[in-house]
Amino acid sequence: LKFSVLAGDYIGPEVMRSALRVLEKVAAQEGLKLDYSEHAVGGCAIDAHGTALPEATLTACEAADAILFGSVGGPKWESLPPKEQPERAALLPLRKHFTLFANIRPGLLYPELREASPLKNERIPEGIDIVCIRELTGGIYFGQPKRTTLLNGGTDVESVDTMIYRKSEIERITEVAITAARSRKRRLCSVDKANVLETSVLWRKTVSDYVAANAPDIELSHMLVDNAAMQLVRDPGQFDVFVTENMFGDILSDEMAVICGSLGMLSSASLGARKNTLGLPYGLYEPAGGTAPDIAGKGIANPCAQILSGALMLRYSFGLEDAATRIERAVREVVASGTRTGDIAFGRTAVGTEQMTEKILGAL
Amino acid sequence: LKFSVLAGDYIGPEVMRSALRVLEKVAAQEGLKLDYSEHAVGGCAIDAHGTALPEATLTACEAADAILFGSVGGPKWESLPPKEQPERAALLPLRKHFTLFANIRPGLLYPELREASPLKNERIPEGIDIVCIRELTGGIYFGQPKRTTLLNGGTDVESVDTMIYRKSEIERITEVAITAARSRKRRLCSVDKANVLETSVLWRKTVSDYVAANAPDIELSHMLVDNAAMQLVRDPGQFDVFVTENMFGDILSDEMAVICGSLGMLSSASLGARKNTLGLPYGLYEPAGGTAPDIAGKGIANPCAQILSGALMLRYSFGLEDAATRIERAVREVVASGTRTGDIAFGRTAVGTEQMTEKILGAL
Ligand SMILES: CC(C)[C@H](C(=O)O)[C@@H](O)C(=O)O
Ligand SMILES: CC(C)[C@H](C(=O)O)[C@@H](O)C(=O)O
Repeated sequence: LKFSVLAGDYIGPEVMRSALRVLEKVAAQEGLKLDYSEHAVGGCAIDAHGTALPEATLTACEAADAILFGSVGGPKWESLPPKEQPERAALLPLRKHFTLFANIRPGLLYPELREASPLKNERIPEGIDIVCIRELTGGIYFGQPKRTTLLNGGTDVESVDTMIYRKSEIERITEVAITAARSRKRRLCSVDKANVLETSVLWRKTVSDYVAANAPDIELSHMLVDNAAMQLVRDPGQFDVFVTENMFGDILSDEMAVICGSLGMLSSASLGARKNTLGLPYGLYEPAGGTAPDIAGKGIANPCAQILSGALMLRYSFGLEDAATRIERAVREVVASGTRTGDIAFGRTAVGTEQMTEKILGAL
Repeated sequence: LKFSVLAGDYIGPEVMRSALRVLEKVAAQEGLKLDYSEHAVGGCAIDAHGTALPEATLTACEAADAILFGSVGGPKWESLPPKEQPERAALLPLRKHFTLFANIRPGLLYPELREASPLKNERIPEGIDIVCIRELTGGIYFGQPKRTTLLNGGTDVESVDTMIYRKSEIERITEVAITAARSRKRRLCSVDKANVLETSVLWRKTVSDYVAANAPDIELSHMLVDNAAMQLVRDPGQFDVFVTENMFGDILSDEMAVICGSLGMLSSASLGARKNTLGLPYGLYEPAGGTAPDIAGKGIANPCAQILSGALMLRYSFGLEDAATRIERAVREVVASGTRTGDIAFGRTAVGTEQMTEKILGAL
């Protein structure tokens, strides 16, 4: 199992250690060996090498079958312009370089953890179980032209961004969404703004046509993005899988994350267009949360999101579905049985990163 | 008080009647006379005149000092393409025609109504009290080019939307946001995506410079849109006034609305660049919710949002701050004292539109 480890800043390396221990154990159980190397990324890479994504890191990732990513950024680099901040300056080039077009984010809240959600318990009787599929390499993030021009002899300024989608880009993300829906309740909701955007009109038509032609077994619906922002909070139980374009996905996936209570529990997979040496999708796997500078170095960070990201890596880039499920079950079992880090403790005695990891290792 | 009444579809006319009765009473108290005429808009206008916004309606609005708008759309017109649906086909041209660039949406939840919010009560100890200022005539809604082209001899298709902002457009919405913040806690949060978008870099710089130069009394902060989508749900109490561009405002204002519990309580003002005959902003005033086809004709719709939209009209387009506040107080008093329509009753006996209106008239 050849992958690159990009742990990043603050709690990044702390929770990464937990994930690697879990992966070591599962690999041993499967009779496989981990073959990974660690590389600089994010704020610490800016400090050490002057860039958030050093050439050497990229080269190492090129030679691997997947990337296990921690998290990057923090107060130390907050005075940098927004576009030079570690998260942005590391993630966007990585996505572009490896054409990581499909971001898969499980929005999962175990019923036992409903207290962690900001939503009233009776709104989420069974917890939450949604998957967000976000297109990750198109739309307004990368569309050209992007420019800023002086107008009227400099008395005004105009800036432009361009949102572009091609039918082929929409089809490939729809394919990923269909696969996700098929592994679940076969209900897919496509989110767009087809009453205002040309790209959304194309989005809606392409998703409709593609599902009709290739996945008549999928129950497809369409929702406008403003309504989706309401429905996620009003009644998350109505969603199974939703798929949307890059910018809407950025907003809605974070909204989905917050109703799930703790970012410390949420993982994500970003799958590439190209295949790795196993013929499976090259991918980048990372927790949904950030570097949590306030708790860094204290050994109390929740390692679950990073561990679950490792599970997603086994599933998608290494085809080890059983091993992935085993990790997911172990995490759930430990949390449900009441072993909790501070972010999800709610009055219980909280355990540290180390103890949490031991418990999960024990449950494997 | 010369305004046009565009009641629209389903419950639109029902709640409009309530608003007009309240406005009649307040006008009488102020020694003023209402001078309004009703005009077709939305689905019923499509049916009667073949267009959601007839020329005659536009002409009548031209001759008035403000527009009191109900709501439009519904199942009857849902088979129309998204871009021809009544809401879209009525509202976007109205916004463009009257350059209604500033959408002001109070996100208000009385502490007495916390039960109506999907958020846990302890997350909103004081209820919710936020104002969203959304830029309404710029950005990706109206930017050109918007186009769809065949590629590679028709084997692929490409669609494009363009997000454009000018410094001058950002300055005028910032001015509105400053005014709103000054009437409250003087805290303004500007929401953008400056780590990805050129338009957001311009947005952030313009808002910063403008506030620094013209409103040093305002405490300004900046937040990325994905984070804002999280923070609104996680801890709405941190917001006083937030200001954002058109598309982000579309999404975030609806997210804000849903945490406030019932759309039946939320109003909005869309202010124009041009002044009316009183030298005050021309404006369009409408409830945040829709036409509620499921309860139309039953006399049970909540009239508060429409009544409160009337109050906003008195405030912004007619300069009647006292009268506006009186209406807002009356609505709050009635609701707090326990008279509730079905959407906010929660086990209490619900009253109908008529009774609710009578109570509010009585409290004026
Ligand atoms: C860092 C930023 C560019 C990125 C995005 O907007 O895609 C982040 O918010 C995310 O969602 O992974
Ligand atoms: C109808 C639609 C075009 C409109 C918008 O997106 O602005 C609506 O959602 C709104 O928020 O008023």
